[in-house]
Amino acid sequence: MTAAGTGLVRHPRFVSLEGGEGAGKSTVLAALRGALEQAGEEVVCTREPGGSPLAERVRGLLLDTTGDAPVPQAELLLMFAARAQLVDTVILPALQRGAWVISDRFTDASHVYQGAARGGDRALIAELERCVVGIEPGLTLLLDLPVAVGHARVRGRGQPDRIETEREEFFETVREAYLQRAGLHADRFRVIDAAAPAEDVAARAVALLHAHRGTQR
Amino acid sequence: MTAAGTGLVRHPRFVSLEGGEGAGKSTVLAALRGALEQAGEEVVCTREPGGSPLAERVRGLLLDTTGDAPVPQAELLLMFAARAQLVDTVILPALQRGAWVISDRFTDASHVYQGAARGGDRALIAELERCVVGIEPGLTLLLDLPVAVGHARVRGRGQPDRIETEREEFFETVREAYLQRAGLHADRFRVIDAAAPAEDVAARAVALLHAHRGTQR
Ligand SMILES: Nc1ncnc2c1ncn2[C@@H]1O[C@H](COP(=O)(O)OP(=O)(O)OP(=O)(O)O)[C@@H](O)[C@H]1O
Ligand SMILES: Nc1ncnc2c1ncn2[C@@H]1O[C@H](COP(=O)(O)OP(=O)(O)OP(=O)(O)O)[C@@H](O)[C@H]1O
Ligand SMILES: [Mg+2]
Ligand SMILES: [Mg+2]
Repeated sequence: MTAAGTGLVRHPRFVSLEGGEGAGKSTVLAALRGALEQAGEEVVCTREPGGSPLAERVRGLLLDTTGDAPVPQAELLLMFAARAQLVDTVILPALQRGAWVISDRFTDASHVYQGAARGGDRALIAELERCVVGIEPGLTLLLDLPVAVGHARVRGRGQPDRIETEREEFFETVREAYLQRAGLHADRFRVIDAAAPAEDVAARAVALLHAHRGTQR
Repeated sequence: MTAAGTGLVRHPRFVSLEGGEGAGKSTVLAALRGALEQAGEEVVCTREPGGSPLAERVRGLLLDTTGDAPVPQAELLLMFAARAQLVDTVILPALQRGAWVISDRFTDASHVYQGAARGGDRALIAELERCVVGIEPGLTLLLDLPVAVGHARVRGRGQPDRIETEREEFFETVREAYLQRAGLHADRFRVIDAAAPAEDVAARAVALLHAHRGTQR
Protein backbone atom coordinates (compact mmCIF):
# COMPACT_ATOMS: atom_id res chain seq x y z
CA MET A 1 0.00 0.00 0.00
CA THR A 2 1.20 3.45 -0.86
CA ALA A 3 -0.51 6.72 -0.12
CA ALA A 4 -0.97 8.66 -3.34
CA GLY A 5 -0.94 12.46 -3.67
CA THR A 6 -4.72 12.38 -3.82
CA GLY A 7 -5.08 11.31 -0.19
CA LEU A 8 -6.24 7.89 -1.39
CA VAL A 9 -4.54 4.65 -0.41
CA ARG A 10 -3.32 2.88 -3.53
CA HIS A 11 -3.42 -0.91 -3.49
CA PRO A 12 -1.07 -2.62 -5.97
CA ARG A 13 -3.12 -5.83 -6.09
CA PHE A 14 -6.27 -3.90 -6.96
CA VAL A 15 -6.90 -3.64 -10.73
CA SER A 16 -9.80 -1.83 -12.39
CA LEU A 17 -11.11 -2.05 -15.94
CA GLU A 18 -12.68 1.01 -17.50
CA GLY A 19 -14.17 1.88 -20.86
CA GLY A 20 -17.46 2.47 -22.61
CA GLU A 21 -20.23 -0.02 -23.32
CA GLY A 22 -19.01 -3.01 -25.32
CA ALA A 23 -15.35 -2.05 -25.03
CA GLY A 24 -14.50 -5.57 -23.87
CA LYS A 25 -14.19 -5.16 -20.08
CA SER A 26 -15.90 -8.46 -19.25
CA THR A 27 -13.80 -10.27 -21.86
CA VAL A 28 -10.52 -8.81 -20.54
CA LEU A 29 -11.55 -9.48 -16.94
CA ALA A 30 -11.81 -13.20 -17.69
CA ALA A 31 -8.35 -13.15 -19.30
CA LEU A 32 -6.75 -11.33 -16.34
CA ARG A 33 -8.38 -13.67 -13.88
CA GLY A 34 -7.05 -16.65 -15.79
CA ALA A 35 -3.53 -15.23 -15.94
CA LEU A 36 -3.42 -14.51 -12.20
CA GLU A 37 -4.87 -17.87 -11.26
CA GLN A 38 -2.29 -19.58 -13.44
CA ALA A 39 0.33 -17.67 -11.47
CA GLY A 40 -1.12 -19.20 -8.29
CA GLU A 41 -2.85 -16.08 -7.04
CA GLU A 42 -6.27 -15.87 -5.38
CA VAL A 43 -8.47 -13.54 -7.45
CA VAL A 44 -11.71 -11.82 -6.48
CA CYS A 45 -13.68 -10.30 -9.36
CA THR A 46 -16.33 -7.71 -8.86
CA ARG A 47 -18.40 -5.30 -10.89
CA GLU A 48 -19.79 -1.82 -10.43
CA PRO A 49 -22.33 -0.85 -9.49
CA GLY A 50 -22.81 -4.08 -7.53
CA GLY A 51 -20.54 -6.83 -6.29
CA SER A 52 -22.16 -7.30 -2.85
CA PRO A 53 -25.77 -8.33 -2.13
CA LEU A 54 -26.79 -4.84 -1.00
CA ALA A 55 -24.84 -3.18 -3.80
CA GLU A 56 -26.51 -5.45 -6.36
CA ARG A 57 -29.88 -4.26 -5.06
CA VAL A 58 -28.72 -0.68 -5.47
CA ARG A 59 -27.62 -1.62 -9.01
CA GLY A 60 -31.19 -2.75 -9.63
CA LEU A 61 -32.49 0.68 -8.60
CA LEU A 62 -29.94 2.45 -10.80
CA LEU A 63 -30.49 0.52 -13.99
CA ASP A 64 -34.24 0.06 -13.69
CA THR A 65 -36.18 1.67 -16.54
CA THR A 66 -39.56 1.59 -14.75
CA GLY A 67 -40.58 3.89 -11.86
CA ASP A 68 -39.14 7.38 -11.30
CA ALA A 69 -35.63 7.68 -12.71
CA PRO A 70 -33.12 8.82 -10.08
CA VAL A 71 -32.39 12.55 -10.28
CA PRO A 72 -28.67 13.16 -11.04
CA GLN A 73 -27.70 13.76 -7.41
CA ALA A 74 -29.53 10.63 -6.30
CA GLU A 75 -27.78 8.61 -9.02
CA LEU A 76 -24.41 9.89 -7.83
CA LEU A 77 -25.08 9.03 -4.19
CA LEU A 78 -26.52 5.61 -5.00
CA MET A 79 -23.36 4.82 -6.97
CA PHE A 80 -21.14 5.83 -4.08
CA ALA A 81 -23.32 4.00 -1.55
CA ALA A 82 -22.90 0.78 -3.54
CA ARG A 83 -19.16 1.46 -3.82
CA ALA A 84 -18.74 2.08 -0.07
CA GLN A 85 -20.45 -1.24 0.59
CA LEU A 86 -18.29 -3.03 -1.99
CA VAL A 87 -15.05 -1.59 -0.63
CA ASP A 88 -15.80 -2.43 3.01
CA THR A 89 -17.38 -5.85 2.59
CA VAL A 90 -15.54 -7.30 -0.43
CA ILE A 91 -12.51 -5.40 -1.73
CA LEU A 92 -10.65 -4.56 1.48
CA PRO A 93 -11.16 -7.99 3.09
CA ALA A 94 -9.84 -9.65 -0.09
CA LEU A 95 -6.80 -7.36 -0.33
CA GLN A 96 -6.09 -7.85 3.36
CA ARG A 97 -5.89 -11.61 2.99
CA GLY A 98 -3.51 -11.23 0.05
CA ALA A 99 -5.87 -11.80 -2.86
CA TRP A 100 -5.93 -9.79 -6.08
CA VAL A 101 -9.10 -7.86 -6.83
CA ILE A 102 -10.22 -7.05 -10.36
CA SER A 103 -13.15 -4.67 -10.64
CA ASP A 104 -15.23 -4.13 -13.77
CA ARG A 105 -15.33 -0.31 -13.33
CA PHE A 106 -14.51 1.70 -10.19
CA THR A 107 -14.49 5.35 -9.07
CA ASP A 108 -13.06 6.59 -12.38
CA ALA A 109 -16.45 5.66 -13.88
CA SER A 110 -18.20 8.10 -11.52
CA HIS A 111 -15.82 10.90 -12.44
CA VAL A 112 -16.57 10.17 -16.08
CA TYR A 113 -20.28 9.29 -16.14
CA GLN A 114 -21.76 11.27 -13.23
CA GLY A 115 -19.16 14.04 -13.38
CA ALA A 116 -18.03 14.85 -16.91
CA ALA A 117 -20.89 13.35 -18.91
CA ARG A 118 -23.85 14.34 -16.71
CA GLY A 119 -22.34 17.57 -15.41
CA GLY A 120 -22.38 16.47 -11.78
CA ASP A 121 -20.65 18.38 -9.00
CA ARG A 122 -16.97 17.44 -9.45
CA ALA A 123 -15.91 18.76 -6.06
CA LEU A 124 -18.54 16.58 -4.39
CA ILE A 125 -17.40 13.53 -6.37
CA ALA A 126 -13.80 14.10 -5.29
CA GLU A 127 -14.96 14.55 -1.68
CA LEU A 128 -16.97 11.32 -1.78
CA GLU A 129 -14.00 9.48 -3.26
CA ARG A 130 -11.81 10.73 -0.42
CA CYS A 131 -14.31 10.24 2.43
CA VAL A 132 -16.22 7.09 1.55
CA VAL A 133 -14.01 5.19 -0.91
CA GLY A 134 -10.52 6.00 0.37
CA ILE A 135 -8.69 3.62 -1.97
CA GLU A 136 -7.64 3.50 -5.61
CA PRO A 137 -6.39 0.76 -7.90
CA GLY A 138 -2.69 0.21 -8.49
CA LEU A 139 -3.46 -0.45 -12.15
CA THR A 140 -6.36 0.79 -14.29
CA LEU A 141 -6.73 -0.53 -17.82
CA LEU A 142 -8.74 1.76 -20.09
CA LEU A 143 -10.22 -0.06 -23.06
CA ASP A 144 -10.55 2.71 -25.61
CA LEU A 145 -12.87 2.27 -28.58
CA PRO A 146 -14.78 4.44 -31.06
CA VAL A 147 -18.35 4.78 -29.76
CA ALA A 148 -19.95 3.32 -32.86
CA VAL A 149 -17.84 0.16 -32.67
CA GLY A 150 -18.86 -0.47 -29.05
CA HIS A 151 -22.52 0.08 -29.91
CA ALA A 152 -22.34 -2.35 -32.80
CA ARG A 153 -20.88 -4.98 -30.45
CA VAL A 154 -23.59 -4.76 -27.80
CA ARG A 155 -26.54 -4.17 -30.15
CA GLY A 156 -29.08 -6.94 -30.10
CA ARG A 157 -28.12 -7.98 -26.58
CA GLY A 158 -31.73 -7.43 -25.40
CA GLN A 159 -33.44 -4.46 -23.72
CA PRO A 160 -30.98 -1.61 -23.10
CA ASP A 161 -30.79 -0.46 -19.45
CA ARG A 162 -31.42 3.16 -18.39
CA ILE A 163 -27.86 4.35 -18.91
CA GLU A 164 -27.48 2.54 -22.25
CA THR A 165 -30.41 4.51 -23.66
CA GLU A 166 -28.47 7.81 -23.51
CA ARG A 167 -27.76 9.57 -26.80
CA GLU A 168 -24.63 9.23 -28.96
CA GLU A 169 -23.10 12.56 -27.86
CA PHE A 170 -23.16 11.38 -24.25
CA PHE A 171 -20.96 8.40 -25.12
CA GLU A 172 -18.53 10.60 -27.04
CA THR A 173 -18.16 12.73 -23.92
CA VAL A 174 -17.58 9.56 -21.90
CA ARG A 175 -14.81 8.45 -24.23
CA GLU A 176 -13.06 11.83 -24.15
CA ALA A 177 -13.38 12.10 -20.36
CA TYR A 178 -11.84 8.64 -19.90
CA LEU A 179 -8.87 9.56 -22.10
CA GLN A 180 -8.42 12.80 -20.18
CA ARG A 181 -8.42 10.96 -16.84
CA ALA A 182 -5.89 8.47 -18.21
CA GLY A 183 -3.63 11.41 -19.02
CA LEU A 184 -4.08 13.03 -15.61
CA HIS A 185 -3.45 9.77 -13.74
CA ALA A 186 -0.84 8.31 -16.06
CA ASP A 187 0.96 6.59 -13.16
CA ARG A 188 -1.79 4.00 -12.78
CA PHE A 189 -3.69 4.18 -16.12
CA ARG A 190 -2.73 2.17 -19.19
CA VAL A 191 -4.74 2.71 -22.38
CA ILE A 192 -5.43 -0.26 -24.64
CA ASP A 193 -6.70 0.00 -28.20
CA ALA A 194 -9.86 -2.05 -27.79
CA ALA A 195 -10.67 -2.06 -31.49
CA ALA A 196 -8.02 -4.75 -32.00
CA PRO A 197 -9.10 -8.41 -32.17
CA ALA A 198 -10.24 -9.81 -28.81
CA GLU A 199 -7.20 -12.11 -28.43
CA ASP A 200 -4.82 -9.20 -29.03
CA VAL A 201 -6.63 -6.99 -26.52
CA ALA A 202 -6.54 -9.77 -23.91
CA ALA A 203 -2.85 -10.49 -24.58
CA ARG A 204 -1.99 -6.81 -24.23
CA ALA A 205 -3.95 -6.55 -20.96
CA VAL A 206 -2.23 -9.62 -19.54
CA ALA A 207 1.19 -8.25 -20.55
CA LEU A 208 0.44 -4.93 -18.82
CA LEU A 209 -0.69 -6.79 -15.71
CA HIS A 210 2.52 -8.85 -15.63
CA ALA A 211 4.61 -5.72 -16.11
CA HIS A 212 2.71 -4.13 -13.19
CA ARG A 213 3.33 -7.21 -11.02
CA GLY A 214 7.00 -7.02 -11.92
CA THR A 215 7.29 -3.49 -10.55
CA GLN A 216 5.79 -4.62 -7.20
CA ARG A 217 8.43 -7.18 -6.32
CA MET B 1 -37.98 31.82 0.56
CA THR B 2 -35.09 33.22 2.54
CA ALA B 3 -31.46 32.25 2.32
CA ALA B 4 -30.25 31.18 5.75
CA GLY B 5 -26.72 31.68 7.06
CA THR B 6 -26.03 28.01 6.35
CA GLY B 7 -26.20 28.48 2.58
CA LEU B 8 -29.50 26.59 2.55
CA VAL B 9 -32.71 28.03 1.17
CA ARG B 10 -35.31 28.13 3.92
CA HIS B 11 -38.91 27.55 2.88
CA PRO B 12 -41.55 28.91 5.30
CA ARG B 13 -44.25 26.47 4.09
CA PHE B 14 -41.97 23.50 4.70
CA VAL B 15 -42.41 21.92 8.16
CA SER B 16 -40.49 18.95 9.53
CA LEU B 17 -41.22 16.73 12.51
CA GLU B 18 -38.32 15.22 14.41
CA GLY B 19 -37.93 13.01 17.45
CA GLY B 20 -37.12 9.47 18.50
CA GLU B 21 -39.11 6.30 17.89
CA GLY B 22 -42.64 6.55 19.26
CA ALA B 23 -42.38 10.24 20.08
CA GLY B 24 -45.63 10.89 18.27
CA LYS B 25 -44.49 12.25 14.90
CA SER B 26 -47.13 10.41 12.87
CA THR B 27 -49.83 11.47 15.33
CA VAL B 28 -48.78 15.14 15.19
CA LEU B 29 -48.45 15.03 11.42
CA ALA B 30 -52.12 14.11 11.09
CA ALA B 31 -53.10 16.97 13.42
CA LEU B 32 -51.03 19.53 11.46
CA ARG B 33 -52.41 18.33 8.17
CA GLY B 34 -55.96 18.69 9.52
CA ALA B 35 -55.31 22.20 10.81
CA LEU B 36 -53.83 23.39 7.51
CA GLU B 37 -56.56 21.82 5.42
CA GLN B 38 -59.16 23.47 7.62
CA ALA B 39 -57.42 26.75 6.85
CA GLY B 40 -57.90 26.01 3.15
CA GLU B 41 -54.30 25.11 2.38
CA GLU B 42 -53.08 22.33 0.10
CA VAL B 43 -50.87 19.98 2.16
CA VAL B 44 -48.38 17.38 0.96
CA CYS B 45 -47.19 14.93 3.61
CA THR B 46 -44.09 12.88 3.22
CA ARG B 47 -41.81 10.69 5.27
CA GLU B 48 -38.12 9.94 5.42
CA PRO B 49 -36.49 7.90 4.20
CA GLY B 50 -39.06 7.54 1.42
CA GLY B 51 -41.84 9.68 0.04
CA SER B 52 -41.23 8.99 -3.67
CA PRO B 53 -41.35 5.61 -5.43
CA LEU B 54 -37.56 5.38 -5.81
CA ALA B 55 -36.97 6.72 -2.29
CA GLU B 56 -39.38 4.14 -0.87
CA ARG B 57 -37.32 1.43 -2.55
CA VAL B 58 -34.20 2.90 -0.95
CA ARG B 59 -36.09 2.89 2.38
CA GLY B 60 -36.65 -0.82 1.86
CA LEU B 61 -32.88 -1.35 1.49
CA LEU B 62 -32.16 0.74 4.60
CA LEU B 63 -34.62 -0.88 6.96
CA ASP B 64 -34.28 -4.46 5.73
CA THR B 65 -33.00 -6.86 8.38
CA THR B 66 -32.03 -9.61 5.90
CA GLY B 67 -28.99 -9.50 3.57
CA ASP B 68 -25.81 -7.53 4.31
CA ALA B 69 -26.52 -4.50 6.51
CA PRO B 70 -25.32 -1.25 4.91
CA VAL B 71 -21.94 -0.12 6.24
CA PRO B 72 -22.24 3.31 7.95
CA GLN B 73 -21.04 5.28 4.92
CA ALA B 74 -23.45 3.40 2.64
CA GLU B 75 -26.31 4.09 5.05
CA LEU B 76 -25.47 7.79 5.02
CA LEU B 77 -25.35 8.00 1.22
CA LEU B 78 -28.53 5.96 0.75
CA MET B 79 -30.33 8.35 3.11
CA PHE B 80 -29.15 11.36 1.15
CA ALA B 81 -29.92 9.70 -2.20
CA ALA B 82 -33.51 9.16 -1.07
CA ARG B 83 -33.64 12.74 0.22
CA ALA B 84 -32.31 14.22 -3.04
CA GLN B 85 -35.01 12.32 -4.93
CA LEU B 86 -37.71 13.46 -2.47
CA VAL B 87 -36.67 17.12 -2.64
CA ASP B 88 -36.53 17.26 -6.44
CA THR B 89 -39.58 15.18 -7.31
CA VAL B 90 -41.98 15.94 -4.42
CA ILE B 91 -41.06 18.74 -2.02
CA LEU B 92 -39.90 21.49 -4.39
CA PRO B 93 -42.74 20.97 -6.91
CA ALA B 94 -45.27 21.16 -4.04
CA LEU B 95 -43.74 24.31 -2.54
CA GLN B 96 -43.54 25.90 -5.97
CA ARG B 97 -47.26 25.51 -6.56
CA GLY B 98 -48.02 27.05 -3.16
CA ALA B 99 -48.71 23.92 -1.10
CA TRP B 100 -47.49 23.27 2.41
CA VAL B 101 -45.17 20.31 2.90
CA ILE B 102 -44.95 18.40 6.18
CA SER B 103 -42.18 15.85 6.39
CA ASP B 104 -41.94 13.10 9.01
CA ARG B 105 -38.17 13.64 9.56
CA PHE B 106 -35.72 15.51 7.31
CA THR B 107 -31.98 16.33 7.21
CA ASP B 108 -31.80 16.97 10.97
CA ALA B 109 -32.37 13.22 11.37
CA SER B 110 -29.17 12.50 9.40
CA HIS B 111 -27.16 14.90 11.53
CA VAL B 112 -28.51 13.11 14.59
CA TYR B 113 -28.65 9.43 13.57
CA GLN B 114 -25.82 9.06 11.02
CA GLY B 115 -23.73 11.88 12.48
CA ALA B 116 -23.93 12.12 16.26
CA ALA B 117 -25.27 8.64 17.08
CA ARG B 118 -23.25 6.55 14.61
CA GLY B 119 -20.19 8.77 14.59
CA GLY B 120 -20.44 9.54 10.87
CA ASP B 121 -18.34 12.21 9.17
CA ARG B 122 -20.06 15.47 10.18
CA ALA B 123 -18.26 17.56 7.58
CA LEU B 124 -19.45 15.20 4.85
CA ILE B 125 -23.02 15.35 6.15
CA ALA B 126 -22.95 19.15 6.11
CA GLU B 127 -21.49 19.07 2.59
CA LEU B 128 -24.20 16.69 1.37
CA GLU B 129 -26.88 18.89 2.94
CA ARG B 130 -25.48 21.90 1.10
CA CYS B 131 -24.82 20.21 -2.26
CA VAL B 132 -27.66 17.73 -2.69
CA VAL B 133 -30.45 18.94 -0.38
CA GLY B 134 -30.08 22.71 -0.58
CA ILE B 135 -33.22 23.52 1.43
CA GLU B 136 -34.32 23.53 5.03
CA PRO B 137 -37.71 23.75 6.77
CA GLY B 138 -39.09 27.05 8.02
CA LEU B 139 -40.34 25.25 11.12
CA THR B 140 -39.06 22.08 12.78
CA LEU B 141 -41.02 20.60 15.67
CA LEU B 142 -38.93 18.37 17.92
CA LEU B 143 -41.03 15.93 19.92
CA ASP B 144 -38.88 15.28 22.95
CA LEU B 145 -39.48 12.25 25.10
CA PRO B 146 -37.59 10.04 27.57
CA VAL B 147 -36.28 7.03 25.62
CA ALA B 148 -38.05 4.46 27.79
CA VAL B 149 -41.44 6.12 27.26
CA GLY B 150 -41.05 6.03 23.47
CA HIS B 151 -40.00 2.38 23.60
CA ALA B 152 -43.01 1.45 25.72
CA ARG B 153 -45.27 3.12 23.15
CA VAL B 154 -43.97 1.29 20.11
CA ARG B 155 -43.34 -2.07 21.79
CA GLY B 156 -45.47 -4.87 20.43
CA ARG B 157 -45.92 -3.11 17.09
CA GLY B 158 -44.46 -6.18 15.29
CA GLN B 159 -40.93 -6.96 14.06
CA PRO B 160 -38.55 -4.05 14.79
CA ASP B 161 -36.71 -2.74 11.71
CA ARG B 162 -32.91 -2.61 11.53
CA ILE B 163 -32.53 0.81 13.14
CA GLU B 164 -35.07 0.05 15.89
CA THR B 165 -32.93 -2.89 17.05
CA GLU B 166 -30.12 -0.55 18.22
CA ARG B 167 -29.29 -0.54 21.93
CA GLU B 168 -30.67 1.84 24.57
CA GLU B 169 -27.54 4.02 24.76
CA PHE B 170 -27.87 4.79 21.06
CA PHE B 171 -31.32 6.26 21.59
CA GLU B 172 -30.11 8.37 24.53
CA THR B 173 -27.46 9.83 22.24
CA VAL B 174 -30.16 10.49 19.65
CA ARG B 175 -32.27 12.37 22.19
CA GLU B 176 -29.36 14.52 23.38
CA ALA B 177 -28.22 15.26 19.83
CA TYR B 178 -31.71 16.40 18.83
CA LEU B 179 -31.89 18.77 21.82
CA GLN B 180 -28.46 20.13 20.96
CA ARG B 181 -29.49 20.78 17.35
CA ALA B 182 -32.65 22.51 18.56
CA GLY B 183 -30.46 24.83 20.61
CA LEU B 184 -28.09 25.53 17.72
CA HIS B 185 -30.92 26.20 15.25
CA ALA B 186 -33.32 27.87 17.66
CA ASP B 187 -34.69 30.14 14.90
CA ARG B 188 -36.55 27.28 13.23
CA PHE B 189 -36.73 24.59 15.99
CA ARG B 190 -39.52 24.40 18.57
CA VAL B 191 -39.28 21.71 21.24
CA ILE B 192 -42.50 20.05 22.44
CA ASP B 193 -42.78 17.93 25.58
CA ALA B 194 -44.04 14.75 23.93
CA ALA B 195 -44.70 12.97 27.22
CA ALA B 196 -47.88 15.02 27.61
CA PRO B 197 -51.21 13.45 26.58
CA ALA B 198 -51.59 13.07 22.81
CA GLU B 199 -54.31 15.78 22.53
CA ASP B 200 -52.11 18.28 24.38
CA VAL B 201 -49.11 17.52 22.19
CA ALA B 202 -51.21 17.92 19.05
CA ALA B 203 -52.76 21.17 20.32
CA ARG B 204 -49.32 22.58 21.13
CA ALA B 205 -48.00 21.60 17.69
CA VAL B 206 -50.97 23.23 15.95
CA ALA B 207 -50.54 26.40 18.04
CA LEU B 208 -46.86 26.59 17.10
CA LEU B 209 -47.73 26.10 13.44
CA HIS B 210 -50.31 28.91 13.55
CA ALA B 211 -47.81 31.18 15.31
CA HIS B 212 -45.31 30.39 12.53
CA ARG B 213 -47.89 31.12 9.83
CA GLY B 214 -48.63 34.42 11.57
CA THR B 215 -45.02 35.53 11.25
CA GLN B 216 -45.10 34.83 7.48
CA ARG B 217 -47.89 37.26 6.62
N1 LIG C 1 -11.71 -6.88 -29.15
C1 LIG C 1 -12.93 -7.28 -29.53
N2 LIG C 1 -13.28 -7.33 -30.82
C2 LIG C 1 -14.51 -7.71 -31.20
N3 LIG C 1 -15.48 -8.06 -30.36
C3 LIG C 1 -15.19 -8.04 -29.04
C4 LIG C 1 -13.92 -7.65 -28.55
N4 LIG C 1 -13.93 -7.71 -27.20
C5 LIG C 1 -15.17 -8.12 -26.86
N5 LIG C 1 -15.92 -8.33 -27.97
C6 LIG C 1 -17.33 -8.73 -28.01
O1 LIG C 1 -18.07 -7.52 -27.83
C7 LIG C 1 -19.15 -7.73 -26.95
C8 LIG C 1 -18.94 -6.85 -25.72
O2 LIG C 1 -17.79 -7.32 -25.00
P1 LIG C 1 -17.78 -7.26 -23.41
O3 LIG C 1 -19.06 -7.78 -22.87
O4 LIG C 1 -16.51 -7.88 -22.96
O5 LIG C 1 -17.72 -5.68 -23.24
P2 LIG C 1 -17.99 -4.85 -21.92
O6 LIG C 1 -17.03 -3.70 -21.96
O7 LIG C 1 -17.95 -5.73 -20.74
O8 LIG C 1 -19.45 -4.36 -22.20
P3 LIG C 1 -20.47 -3.75 -21.09
O9 LIG C 1 -20.05 -2.35 -20.87
O10 LIG C 1 -21.79 -3.81 -21.81
O11 LIG C 1 -20.39 -4.64 -19.89
C9 LIG C 1 -19.14 -9.21 -26.62
O12 LIG C 1 -20.01 -9.84 -27.51
C10 LIG C 1 -17.71 -9.64 -26.88
O13 LIG C 1 -17.59 -10.99 -27.26
N1 LIG D 1 -48.58 11.97 23.55
C1 LIG D 1 -48.82 10.65 23.52
N2 LIG D 1 -49.08 9.96 24.64
C2 LIG D 1 -49.30 8.64 24.63
N3 LIG D 1 -49.26 7.88 23.50
C3 LIG D 1 -49.00 8.52 22.34
C4 LIG D 1 -48.77 9.92 22.29
N4 LIG D 1 -48.52 10.27 21.00
C5 LIG D 1 -48.60 9.11 20.28
N5 LIG D 1 -48.90 8.08 21.09
C6 LIG D 1 -49.03 6.68 20.71
O1 LIG D 1 -47.69 6.18 20.68
C7 LIG D 1 -47.49 5.36 19.55
C8 LIG D 1 -46.41 5.98 18.67
O2 LIG D 1 -46.89 7.23 18.14
P1 LIG D 1 -46.52 7.67 16.66
O3 LIG D 1 -46.65 6.53 15.73
O4 LIG D 1 -47.25 8.93 16.35
O5 LIG D 1 -44.98 7.99 16.91
P2 LIG D 1 -43.84 8.20 15.84
O6 LIG D 1 -42.94 9.24 16.38
O7 LIG D 1 -44.44 8.45 14.50
O8 LIG D 1 -43.13 6.79 15.87
P3 LIG D 1 -42.12 6.19 14.76
O9 LIG D 1 -40.83 6.87 15.00
O10 LIG D 1 -42.07 4.74 15.11
O11 LIG D 1 -42.73 6.48 13.43
C9 LIG D 1 -48.83 5.25 18.84
O12 LIG D 1 -49.46 4.10 19.31
C10 LIG D 1 -49.57 6.50 19.31
O13 LIG D 1 -50.97 6.32 19.35
MG1 LIG E 1 -19.36 -6.08 -19.21
MG1 LIG F 1 -44.18 7.46 12.66
